[in-house]
Amino acid sequence: MNGNGGLRSFSKIMSPQSKAIVYERHGSPDSVTRVVMLPPVEVRENDVCVKMIAAPINPADINQIEGVYPVRPPLPAVGGQEGVGEVYAVGSRVKSLSPGDFVIPSPILSSEKLGTWQTYVVKEEGVWQKIDKMCPIEYAATIAVNPLTALRMLEDFVLLNSGDSVVQNGATSTVGQCIIQLARLRGISSINIIRDRAGSDEAKEKLKALGANKVFLESQLNVKNVKSLLGNLPEPSLGFNCIGGNAASLVLKNLREGGTMVTYGAMSKKPINVSTTSFVFKDLSLRGFWLQRWTSLDKAKECTKMIDYLIGLVRDGTLKYETELIPFEDFSAALDKALGKRGSHPKQVLRF
Amino acid sequence: MNGNGGLRSFSKIMSPQSKAIVYERHGSPDSVTRVVMLPPVEVRENDVCVKMIAAPINPADINQIEGVYPVRPPLPAVGGQEGVGEVYAVGSRVKSLSPGDFVIPSPILSSEKLGTWQTYVVKEEGVWQKIDKMCPIEYAATIAVNPLTALRMLEDFVLLNSGDSVVQNGATSTVGQCIIQLARLRGISSINIIRDRAGSDEAKEKLKALGANKVFLESQLNVKNVKSLLGNLPEPSLGFNCIGGNAASLVLKNLREGGTMVTYGAMSKKPINVSTTSFVFKDLSLRGFWLQRWTSLDKAKECTKMIDYLIGLVRDGTLKYETELIPFEDFSAALDKALGKRGSHPKQVLRF
Repeated sequence: MNGNGGLRSFSKIMSPQSKAIVYERHGSPDSVTRVVMLPPVEVRENDVCVKMIAAPINPADINQIEGVYPVRPPLPAVGGQEGVGEVYAVGSRVKSLSPGDFVIPSPILSSEKLGTWQTYVVKEEGVWQKIDKMCPIEYAATIAVNPLTALRMLEDFVLLNSGDSVVQNGATSTVGQCIIQLARLRGISSINIIRDRAGSDEAKEKLKALGANKVFLESQLNVKNVKSLLGNLPEPSLGFNCIGGNAASLVLKNLREGGTMVTYGAMSKKPINVSTTSFVFKDLSLRGFWLQRWTSLDKAKECTKMIDYLIGLVRDGTLKYETELIPFEDFSAALDKALGKRGSHPKQVLRF
Repeated sequence: MNGNGGLRSFSKIMSPQSKAIVYERHGSPDSVTRVVMLPPVEVRENDVCVKMIAAPINPADINQIEGVYPVRPPLPAVGGQEGVGEVYAVGSRVKSLSPGDFVIPSPILSSEKLGTWQTYVVKEEGVWQKIDKMCPIEYAATIAVNPLTALRMLEDFVLLNSGDSVVQNGATSTVGQCIIQLARLRGISSINIIRDRAGSDEAKEKLKALGANKVFLESQLNVKNVKSLLGNLPEPSLGFNCIGGNAASLVLKNLREGGTMVTYGAMSKKPINVSTTSFVFKDLSLRGFWLQRWTSLDKAKECTKMIDYLIGLVRDGTLKYETELIPFEDFSAALDKALGKRGSHPKQVLRF
């Protein structure tokens, strides 16, 4: 043995320290998360070290910290599963990426659970997807979960043609806003249901500006014949539910005979209640969507293409949704907003 | 004009008077039905007059009288939609049927709503399907609704292979008994759920004698890990629900990831409650089955074949289910049993 060992250790690439939002046990995110400085880690030959630029607080992130999500990384863990960053350093065998590139974690590999709420992330080359640097960071940071969910849900359940319609609750959510616009792009009308709350008139106007054909408050749908409210829109064959409880029943009520409701969230934490009549006589189908299941189906190529497509729509102004960039230092405030403690807010996106 | 008019009217074939169970308004069947003697009606050239031999009291008949069924014949109406009879007289243009033939109303035309709870029924030739006279009348009278439902539900939702399993509640119902046997014929195991009640041990043994692989009381399934109760049976990909409420939740609990529950009845009159998790993470699908929708899809040929197949199974002893023949005169007693007023009873079949 000669001095090679020493040389080798000298040539190791190390990441900078990483400031991270860490949780050591499951529970309410505002009580179990804290800021931790993580020590530098080695950037091995196939690794890429990414300096995070922005990362959202998604409902799934909150559920994961609460411990109610089926995928649970070993604890302690860093929060966050989505985001955008700039390549800071690459291992010796990395070919597809160079320092300065903008990357997002590929949703295909989201089960790896990166922990994007930190300043530097080191993961293998294959985890990262290079994206268009001209995409605004608040979109780049959020394109791979919610807009992709909206796009897939319009594809995977019911064959929709131009002239058809869809119905959804939780229409002000990021997925909801994307559904309105992606449907409209294909000539499909949207019927949107929002909560009765202060500011609902403003919310209605915003959704209409995105292209929503109809926007109803839940209370407006407490009528026997909802069809009469649809004007000349056809009854929808596809509905989306991210709320549960009565808001889910309102989606079912709007569906036409033989229609399908896809559940992808549970903001009210209430179950879905369905009458036997809905199944037997109205022939409704109830299904579920989980992006992580879809991406686990060996969809890498399709997924990359879809993200590029969505970023294209963002860049040409066809796809918009509300986000609020907030400095990483103000994580607690962003978390409170994401938890809905301070009323309704746009998607919170941490800016590093 | 000569005497032809007179001759013609002389040559009219008229049915006998018909003793019928009639309801003039919707409500509880035991309060709104009564026995009425209906006057003779003309048997026109395409008509067949059938002397009813036997007719069951099905849940759908009760719902129709209650007015909670989506198809409602004009009132007053004769009860009953299924049964077997003997051809009594045929019109001059009837080619396929002769007096003495045994016939059942084709399920394809069940929306015509014959009213089988009467001694003579006159309907067009096309309404009737000739059947094997050697089929025991309690089976002939009941083959076209419940066994056909069981057969279709095993076909129409999930591709099942030998070695697979299905789960169902209401396993002692006629459909339930048929599912056990029709599944077994194809090498498919059945997991059966029955109510906790007096006589449940006997009910268990009866179902096992029909070929049930597992029979559980609802209370036995109040465990976290139902999979551990299945022994070496695979988790089912298909489930059937005819009860609703908790009994439906138990079917969902038994299904494997990606499984489908088909609802075809609502004996408890309780809705179905589903968690968001079941849809999003367990990827369950919930569907419904209504025989009348299936038969409306221009399935005449297939339907005739399936009924002949089922009658063949009955005749060779492969398909059995419990019925109780009861004289037409004792309609009230049969109705009380069918309404569940006197505990649990086999399918009530009126004998004319």
